[in-house]
Amino acid sequence: MAELAIPPFLLTPGPITTSMTVKQAMLCDWGSWDSDFRAMTRSLCEQLVACISDTGEFVCVPLQGSGTFAVEATLATLIPQQGKALVLINGAYGRRMTQILDYLGRAYVVLDKGDYAPPRADEVSAILQQDSGISHVLMVHCETSSGILNPVAEIAAIVEQHDRRLIIDSMSAFGAIDIHATDLRFDALISSANKCFEGVPGFSFALLRRTALEASAGNAHSLSLDLLDQWRYMNATEQWRFTPPTHVVAAFIQALREHAAEGGVAGRFTRYRRNQQRLVEGMRQLGFTTLLSDEWQSPIIVTFLSPTDHYFSFQGFYDRLKARNYIIYPGKLTVVESFRLGCIGQLYDAEIDGLLEAVRDVMDELKSVQVQP
Amino acid sequence: MAELAIPPFLLTPGPITTSMTVKQAMLCDWGSWDSDFRAMTRSLCEQLVACISDTGEFVCVPLQGSGTFAVEATLATLIPQQGKALVLINGAYGRRMTQILDYLGRAYVVLDKGDYAPPRADEVSAILQQDSGISHVLMVHCETSSGILNPVAEIAAIVEQHDRRLIIDSMSAFGAIDIHATDLRFDALISSANKCFEGVPGFSFALLRRTALEASAGNAHSLSLDLLDQWRYMNATEQWRFTPPTHVVAAFIQALREHAAEGGVAGRFTRYRRNQQRLVEGMRQLGFTTLLSDEWQSPIIVTFLSPTDHYFSFQGFYDRLKARNYIIYPGKLTVVESFRLGCIGQLYDAEIDGLLEAVRDVMDELKSVQVQP
Repeated sequence: MAELAIPPFLLTPGPITTSMTVKQAMLCDWGSWDSDFRAMTRSLCEQLVACISDTGEFVCVPLQGSGTFAVEATLATLIPQQGKALVLINGAYGRRMTQILDYLGRAYVVLDKGDYAPPRADEVSAILQQDSGISHVLMVHCETSSGILNPVAEIAAIVEQHDRRLIIDSMSAFGAIDIHATDLRFDALISSANKCFEGVPGFSFALLRRTALEASAGNAHSLSLDLLDQWRYMNATEQWRFTPPTHVVAAFIQALREHAAEGGVAGRFTRYRRNQQRLVEGMRQLGFTTLLSDEWQSPIIVTFLSPTDHYFSFQGFYDRLKARNYIIYPGKLTVVESFRLGCIGQLYDAEIDGLLEAVRDVMDELKSVQVQP
Repeated sequence: MAELAIPPFLLTPGPITTSMTVKQAMLCDWGSWDSDFRAMTRSLCEQLVACISDTGEFVCVPLQGSGTFAVEATLATLIPQQGKALVLINGAYGRRMTQILDYLGRAYVVLDKGDYAPPRADEVSAILQQDSGISHVLMVHCETSSGILNPVAEIAAIVEQHDRRLIIDSMSAFGAIDIHATDLRFDALISSANKCFEGVPGFSFALLRRTALEASAGNAHSLSLDLLDQWRYMNATEQWRFTPPTHVVAAFIQALREHAAEGGVAGRFTRYRRNQQRLVEGMRQLGFTTLLSDEWQSPIIVTFLSPTDHYFSFQGFYDRLKARNYIIYPGKLTVVESFRLGCIGQLYDAEIDGLLEAVRDVMDELKSVQVQP
């Protein structure tokens, strides 16, 4: 499928580079009330649920808007007003969950590991042991702020042991990192159309334990973000409550086809891991340093420390790579200067090699510009 | 531009039939952090504000999600917790605003005119006179439940006279019905990408009086739907707070180009009014009756009463029209059976005439099916 990738190449955590066939699926208009479109919605939900469970314990609720909309909707719908959350933080997306809880007026405590250290089971266990009021643990699967793949199975086991509920923001991991409800226990897994499934942005979704969703009446603070209401309406009508992004949904149906053709989650993992290893190896050869040790590095996105040489500026680096059709991403660390390179989307060996060549050229250019008077 | 319209034709209030050039604008990927995309967002906001005001008093805040998301976000952001709303209702979208207010926990009273009667100034005046606690009046510009064009200038004048704030849900009217801040006073006008501007669905927007928005700190109930937060972030960075539907935004930029090329709001009004009159005339010749008198009929969508003949069923009518590439819309009246035909989107004389011919054929077919034993 590599021949379908056309520039510019987005080396970002999303929106990502999509295939031309995914984009071409948007060249038609659909009536949202029509049975053809309803069948697309049904198929989308069935395929997403099938990725994590085949027992009927989980349902899929898609939601218009970005991934954050689905995170807010899930927290608001599943955590009762008297509930209390433990939020595991090691980056911007963990912090964002606390911001949402502030709006919702839900009680919470945090385990904040700073910019990139992983939360560990013993730490979580100690907090849960001490505070029996905590009803839900919230964690980010892949924290793209650093690129760390958090130890979701380890955390899930300890949360289950303490009989609390786990909500996983798997925005940038689901579709490429295997996660299955038979292997670890959770009540919700949240993701979006335009990450590892390689659709275009415009909707997000939550995979929810049916019993938890059914018990959530009266929790949600918002009509638009009430996942129980959205689910009930969809169940009854096969329609979204409010106008869906029809073209984006059509693109996602095509993206699911291409995901399956690549071997599903396992196939995508293999390509992304290959991208990430090729990228890291090449960048190290060019003298760059990764933030994370290989043990914690996800195959989703890699944080590189910015060179401290005075000729290097992120904007100069960015602009010159962009002129060569590679769009990179700024860092999000609080302490050190960094930039990020994504490994997801329609990127293959050719694009990684092309990027590495472009980085070498651009670094030479930055140095030579500097040398001139 | 008529040659750009390809089947199926959506005779619906949205999603609507879009031009092929609008859809083709989605055949590229954009980085949401990149300056090219930021320029698109800035241009989109400037062009939308320019439709209603050139004084700098208004700002545009786009929001991911359907139109209802922007309605909820606007009510939550602008109406303070101690505020009180008067909701003018004559259909589903007025009722939906009360549903939102229920979630928000904001006080409100309603003027409910039933399925299709317009709210009048003297009625609104009497309510405002009697209840000084009402801070905001909420109305729907074109109520697509019936197709009525509500008397927005008349209501705006009386609301201003009583020194209250007006919020207009102009979802299906803005872009084709002239509305200008110099002619009538309002604090917010809400619309969406895929109505009269003929973009594809995936985001919505509010045009907000800057002073009202600036005074709204602390009002919003939701991170995702906080328009003040979205605006401040956009002002500072030219970026959406959370991943925007990049392809949908690109399509909208192209849609704005085509809107301007057609003569802007006036040009679009002319075509839609022509569509609506041609449609109504033709349908009347075929024996159909409109719900509304011509005085109140918008050029956006027309409600027809379903024939009471026993051979007529909406589903049979729908399926046969769909087989001929025309997608129609069910009725939304509470009392009588009806169906709706939209006049907006990429529809021209040829499509209206084609639809009328299809309706005639389908009605003949329904009758003849019935006649068979």
